[in-house]
This record gives sequence, structure tokens and C-alpha cells, in this order.
Amino acid sequence: MGVGLTRKSGAGGRSTVRDVAARAGVSASTVSRVLGGEYPVSAATRTRVLRAVRELDYVADARARAVAGAGTPTLAFVLEDITGPSFAHMAYGVEREAARLGHLSLVCSTDGDVRRELEFIEMMRAQRAAAVILVGGAADTPEYRERTRRVADSLAAAGSRLVLCGRPPLGPGAPVTVIEYDNEGGAYALVAHVLAQGHRRVLFLGGKPDHTTAMGRQRGYLAAHRARGVEPDPALLLHGDFTRDSGHRLMRQALARGLEFSAVIAATDMVAAGALTALHEAGLAVPGDVSLAGYDDIPFARDLRPALTTVHVPYEELGRLAVRTALGHGGESADEHLLLGTHVVVRDSVAAYGGH
Amino acid sequence: MGVGLTRKSGAGGRSTVRDVAARAGVSASTVSRVLGGEYPVSAATRTRVLRAVRELDYVADARARAVAGAGTPTLAFVLEDITGPSFAHMAYGVEREAARLGHLSLVCSTDGDVRRELEFIEMMRAQRAAAVILVGGAADTPEYRERTRRVADSLAAAGSRLVLCGRPPLGPGAPVTVIEYDNEGGAYALVAHVLAQGHRRVLFLGGKPDHTTAMGRQRGYLAAHRARGVEPDPALLLHGDFTRDSGHRLMRQALARGLEFSAVIAATDMVAAGALTALHEAGLAVPGDVSLAGYDDIPFARDLRPALTTVHVPYEELGRLAVRTALGHGGESADEHLLLGTHVVVRDSVAAYGGH
Repeated sequence: MGVGLTRKSGAGGRSTVRDVAARAGVSASTVSRVLGGEYPVSAATRTRVLRAVRELDYVADARARAVAGAGTPTLAFVLEDITGPSFAHMAYGVEREAARLGHLSLVCSTDGDVRRELEFIEMMRAQRAAAVILVGGAADTPEYRERTRRVADSLAAAGSRLVLCGRPPLGPGAPVTVIEYDNEGGAYALVAHVLAQGHRRVLFLGGKPDHTTAMGRQRGYLAAHRARGVEPDPALLLHGDFTRDSGHRLMRQALARGLEFSAVIAATDMVAAGALTALHEAGLAVPGDVSLAGYDDIPFARDLRPALTTVHVPYEELGRLAVRTALGHGGESADEHLLLGTHVVVRDSVAAYGGH
Repeated sequence: MGVGLTRKSGAGGRSTVRDVAARAGVSASTVSRVLGGEYPVSAATRTRVLRAVRELDYVADARARAVAGAGTPTLAFVLEDITGPSFAHMAYGVEREAARLGHLSLVCSTDGDVRRELEFIEMMRAQRAAAVILVGGAADTPEYRERTRRVADSLAAAGSRLVLCGRPPLGPGAPVTVIEYDNEGGAYALVAHVLAQGHRRVLFLGGKPDHTTAMGRQRGYLAAHRARGVEPDPALLLHGDFTRDSGHRLMRQALARGLEFSAVIAATDMVAAGALTALHEAGLAVPGDVSLAGYDDIPFARDLRPALTTVHVPYEELGRLAVRTALGHGGESADEHLLLGTHVVVRDSVAAYGGH
């Protein structure tokens, strides 16, 4: 049970909770309770213990607790943008499954900064996190692969596990668990549905051109066209990011440029939400004048008017699966590569071409 | 620069990165680079270092690095529900401001579980986080105040700072920074706007009855009625949570029960989104048949149709302010209690009573 204590000033002279207990004239377990803040302790006792802590200049050491097996085991979850609802739902799945399996999950939002990601991973490794889950696409460069391979090795050496969820996989032999969802397949099915309604000029509001998730969705868009014998006009492929504001801006630009299209595929539902407002502002009816579809099936996709046709990605389940796999509770072998399917959810935002 | 290393098996025998370096036949800084995963190192060197790490059964110690001043200083952010967009935007503000000030921010979503919150805080205290920011309402009970006071004392003893952001404040003298946004004032202004349009039976889709944020908004609803000399019908006060699904469910129930109302105030924009869909499903036009308003002004409030009238809460700025205040960069005194104002954003979802 003991809360390990080490001297603030570092280096030598480690000590235990018992030194504080002796100085405060209470039991070691009382010190633990006061420091943990978890159980009722009288105000007088609390004051005595906190004074002893200050006088001895000690600070509790989570690592020592983890080593002793007394601390809460942890899991780490790294995402690029905490305001994106799809990954927030994945984080929720991670948190719930981690809780079910007795782990605390820590989230770090990096805003795409590789250095911060590495700092966080290093901290989690030192913390002896059971697993580090990286989510969301990235640019799949040699530099990415080498850096991520180093991270995987360094985590493995510390007894931890790297999980890549929607991130580009590494080469064979890397000590990682890879969980992907089928961006290309989902986009293919969605665009095939739109083409089957007779549309031939389909605007694509995509993500960053080197981002693997965005590229997967774009590949699906292109493949669905080719399967129908339609050569897509490259002028209809626009690039931004995955936010509502990006969708709004790209849609306004497309309208201002006079691009011709009868349907729009947005790379995410958030992009679709912004695009829908831009179409509305331009006096265009959806789907009467323009059909629109999104990607992700975040909960409020059904609250847009018209309710949004989109691709369902099981984000919460992805989060749960990442945790189960990383902790080895799912029976999957250590280096399994999992690919989850996605499916189209048909609502009211896509109509037959020529309906207007 | 040294990455502190301690023996996995705990207790005595601390050592340094130099032991690993000696065994691997490389410099200490090379070991740091390999373990940090940050810089290019040849594959052969990496293999040698990782083998030495495994053989010595060592693990890097973030706490030791922090003590030595070499690690990244951290900030911790605790919220109840990571899928709620308002707090996600606050977390984004925290992350950006923390980054600007050279800190890494860690997020923990507790799903309302007090024990997990305490475990995380204990870990962050051991980690020597510069501050721990708790956000979102809670039940303001004696137990809450006592527990939170203990947490504040224990963090203060470790040189860290507790920030309560939208959480109930503690009594005087507690070592905490309190930042509140005006839930009651915002709701008062919004409901006054709705009453000024002639509405007299205004349904309130509220949050949990003991949750301080929800109660503040409800107090504003009641006060605005009384200021107009209108006694609100208690049957019009419904309680759920702050999610889209709760809004959808409560709205359906209100319609099924045959409650009479001409306007709806939702406790959050997410609740409003769900309510809007339920109204739509019932064949009711907004605002033609029923007026509707939300609270929070999350980005996609303007993507709903009609665009949602709501109360703007500066969540991202709240996050930035919490960080600046906690780190003492804002010039505010240590125990200042800050209250941020909110304002109504009038869009298209509220119409004059009798317009239908």
C-alpha cells in the first residue's frame, strides 16, 4: 500500500512514507490517506502530516508506487485535435475500457506537434504505462517510420506497448499493435452510392494532401469513380483540414470559383456541417440543388437538416478494442494487424441527380 | 540533460544513465537520445543500447528528470466527459497556452468517477505537475468541499496548484484558484430575450438536479421569469444530462406527455441539437411552431437549421486563462476568484410568440 516518498532535492537519500509518519506522529497508512486525499482524516491530523511533508521537503513518487504494484496502472492516448468529435468518442471508448480493466487513461492532445508527442510518450514510458495508443492519420514518411519504430522499441524495452490506431503501420517485426479502420473502403461505398444516384461531378472536400486518413478517403473517392468508368475532374479535389471551419471555407471558395458539381463528399462530418452552412448561405437547397455526404457518423450528424448521409466508423469500439488488444485481454496475438470495416448510413442529404 | 534511470525492482540501488552507457559502450547522451526516441541514431547503436537497458532491467524515471529540471513541466486537466464539445474547446485552450508557456498538458476524463479523479490527481502530484485544473460543475456537498480542500492542501504541499474552473468554489483560505463563468447571468439574459418575444410557457431541458452548472442555468431561467412577473410552471422543468441524446429523449417525452409550451431552453447546445431533431420528427417547425435556444455557443451551433440562438461561453479563453493564472503569468494574485461574463448570440431559432 505504501506511497513511496523521495526527497525533492533528487539524487541520493531515498526514504519512505515512514519518515513522514514518524515525524507527524501518525501511522504510515494515515500519511498515505492524507496524501492521497481519499479518506476522511481529522483536520488536526491532516495539518500535522502536511507540515511534516513540508518540513522534510518530500514528494510522493508515483513511479515508486507503480513499481511496488500499489499505484493505478495507466494507459496513454495521444491524439492531434481534442476538439474533433470522432477522436473524442474514441478517447471515451479508451477511457471506459481502461476503467473496466482497472487502468487510468491519460490523454495528450499534441496539435500535431511531434516534439510534444515524443515528450508525452517519454513521460508515459517513465510512468510505466501499460500501453501508448497513437490515433489518427499522419504523413507516412521514412522519417515517420523511423521515429515511430524507435518509440516502439523504447516502449517495448520498458515493458510497454505501442498501439497505432488509424496511424500508418510500420514495417514487419516492429513491436506494435496496429488497428486500422477502412477509410478507402468506406469512401468507396459512399461515393458509389452517390454515383448510383446519377451524379457525375462530385466535389471532394478533402484533408491535408499527405495525411494518411485523408488520402485513404480520397483513394476511395477515385476508385469508386473509376469502377463506374467515370474520370473525376481533378479540379473537384479540394484540400483543407477536418474542421467545420475548413468545410465552410472550402465550400465558399468552390462556389465563388464557379466550380460545377451536383454533389459534395466531405472528408468528415464536421467538414460537411460547415459546407452545409455555406451552401445554405448561398441559397442552395440540400439535397434539392446539391447532394451532400459526410464521413464518421458522429452523433449530431443526424441533427443536421437534412440529416446527413455518412460513413459510420465505430470510434468508441475502436477505442475499446485498442485497449483490450494492448492489454492482451482480447486473445489477439501480440503483433496482430486489425482492420475494422465501416458502412454507409443513408439519411436524407443525398438525392437523385436531376431531381431539381 | 540526463535521463534518470532506476532499477525496475524498486527499493535501493538507484543508478544513472551512465551504467547503461558503459554497458552499451556509448556515451550517456546517446543513451538519452535512444530512450527519448528523438534524434537519429544508427540501428546498430540503438540495438546495443536497448539490449543494455533490458539486461540491466532499468527504466527511465520521469520524476527524476523533473527534479533535475530536465523534463518537460506539466499541467493536468480533469474533465467529466471528453465527448462534450464545450470542455474539449477548453482543453484545447489549456493545451495551446500550456504549449506557449513550455508546459505539456495531460488530460484525464473521469466519466464522473471521483475515485479516478483522485487517482489521477495523486499521479499528477507525484509527477510534480505545476497545476491541476478541474473543470465542470459538480454537486456542491460538504463531502465535495472537504475532499477538494484536502486535494488543494496536498497539491500545495507538493508545490502544485489546484484550479477550479466552473467547479464549486471552496471556503475562504483554501489554496486554490477559482475561475467561474456566469451560468446564471447567461441564462437570465437568454430567457429574458425569449420572454421579450412574448413567450410565457417556456420548457427548460435542464441537467442533473444537483449539478452546479445546471443549477446556475436553471436559476437564471427562474429569475428571468420572476423579473417579468411570470410564475414558471414547475411541470416545464425537466432534468437529464448535457448530451444530444438526453435532449432528444426529454423532448420526445415532453411531446408525448402533451406538455404545452411555445419555446424551449436547452441547458446546452448539444441538448438543443437532440431536441431540434425530436421536434422535427414530430412535424413541428422551429421557430415557426416552437422557438428553441441553447447554451455554450459551440462551433456547429451555427450549422443547425435554424442556426441556434444561444449563450456564448468563451471556453477556449477560459482554458488559456486557467493556465496563465495557475502559472502566475497573468499578474493575478494567488487566490483571486475570477468570474467571466457570457453573452447571448441571437441567430434564427427564436421567433415572436404567436407568429404561427
